Amino acid sequence: MNRKQLVKQIFDKKTFLCVGLDVDLTKIPQHLLKADDPIFAFNKAIIDATAPYCVAYKPNLAFYECYGLKGMAAFEKTVDYLKTTYPHHFIIADAKRGDIGNTSRMYARTFFQEYDLDALTVAPYMGEDSIKPFLEYDRKWVVLLALTSNKGSHDFQLTTAENGRQLFEHVLLRSLEWGNKENMMYVVGATQGKMFQAVRKIVPEHFLLVPGVGAQGGSLQEVCKYGMTQDCGLLVNSSRGIIYASQGYDFAEKAAESAKALQQEMAIELLR
Amino acid sequence: MNRKQLVKQIFDKKTFLCVGLDVDLTKIPQHLLKADDPIFAFNKAIIDATAPYCVAYKPNLAFYECYGLKGMAAFEKTVDYLKTTYPHHFIIADAKRGDIGNTSRMYARTFFQEYDLDALTVAPYMGEDSIKPFLEYDRKWVVLLALTSNKGSHDFQLTTAENGRQLFEHVLLRSLEWGNKENMMYVVGATQGKMFQAVRKIVPEHFLLVPGVGAQGGSLQEVCKYGMTQDCGLLVNSSRGIIYASQGYDFAEKAAESAKALQQEMAIELLR
Repeated sequence: MNRKQLVKQIFDKKTFLCVGLDVDLTKIPQHLLKADDPIFAFNKAIIDATAPYCVAYKPNLAFYECYGLKGMAAFEKTVDYLKTTYPHHFIIADAKRGDIGNTSRMYARTFFQEYDLDALTVAPYMGEDSIKPFLEYDRKWVVLLALTSNKGSHDFQLTTAENGRQLFEHVLLRSLEWGNKENMMYVVGATQGKMFQAVRKIVPEHFLLVPGVGAQGGSLQEVCKYGMTQDCGLLVNSSRGIIYASQGYDFAEKAAESAKALQQEMAIELLR
Repeated sequence: MNRKQLVKQIFDKKTFLCVGLDVDLTKIPQHLLKADDPIFAFNKAIIDATAPYCVAYKPNLAFYECYGLKGMAAFEKTVDYLKTTYPHHFIIADAKRGDIGNTSRMYARTFFQEYDLDALTVAPYMGEDSIKPFLEYDRKWVVLLALTSNKGSHDFQLTTAENGRQLFEHVLLRSLEWGNKENMMYVVGATQGKMFQAVRKIVPEHFLLVPGVGAQGGSLQEVCKYGMTQDCGLLVNSSRGIIYASQGYDFAEKAAESAKALQQEMAIELLR
């Protein structure tokens, strides 16, 4: 999906919600464990319930890999289901990959060619040749880690260099030499509050993928105040707050309610 | 495997070679493509041929994931084969993972519990809570990216902070607060030459996993001169130089020759 199509979806549906599909078998309704493929059964119900209220889905690979081949089969089925049933939803593989050039090329092939997903999260530590192979695909996106939502973001990302720039600013600036607002987004955690202003000084128009609203404590209003652009420029992710809204038979219904509540807040933000 | 056992293997076998299992179906002998599982057929032959000359194997997950479920099945078979046939070899999953705490916990479970591997490469960008979950397992190792072998290592890892420290030095120093020489190693590329001195100033005794000898141009002698410790402290990896030494019917024989040549150089270094 290209930028124009994504922006159109956002304004047509009045939402910039991304639903994180982080499926943990210990947290899903226990009656689903009897299904042939509990992970897929859960995902399918969550997707059908939330699709009207979101523009993107973000399966987190860790939660599929940990169940071995069965987990990866459930991942593939989920992706297939999304692509055939909801072809206008943007799909982000949250995998935080990044390796030397020839290895990153293999990862790019996996996620952009084999699975044909829209975007992949990538870690910047290894620099240019670890990121560029992902930028060679048309209408595919790198979502580069910039300023993450966790406490550990303070360890290195906020280190100040000799030139006065913090590491995440250096990452943003360098990455502008590799990609552009049509093929690169950045992860900026909702928990970072006013730091969105520093991010927007360097990347005023790029899309930001924003985790950390909900379970991690970030505020949607603050994110929008400091991060929103004319064509929105935000994909705000919620995982646990939506998919585990209930652990009973009404899980899909409650997930829809949670997603709808966020969508309604987002509709207001889009009108400001 | 714990540190003492690893060191014993190194001195008993007079080698600190790690063989990288980066299987690319376009590069393996074409007659293997007829096998039921060409990736596993290739790995099994390479492992049997090189086991006497190395102490560790490092499958790179990118090269398995890119073949989807078949690739991951080949990865599992390779790991099973290693664990049952060569239980004294140290196995490193080269996956460069790292995410917020609850996600890193899932990755740790996958690689240390499900697959029961010895070590996993981890990227430091997201800081403490992205790394600590991997350190909660007994006799398992985090191999943290410090100073990688690729050109992109210059983009961020060598950035100098206000306090005069380069980012990789800051990563080393911070990580000493989380792990120790019994559960943490560092990736330092063979191409970094004299920079090994700067690394050793901060981590004089930790094991270093050293890629970049061979195809990437690093020198074994230089690595040993600046990086070796009293109990070796090095695992030097070679992937392409060994596994693709020949693409004909003699591929396993040639892989053994390449591995043996490196082992013999290593035996000399261990005697210095």
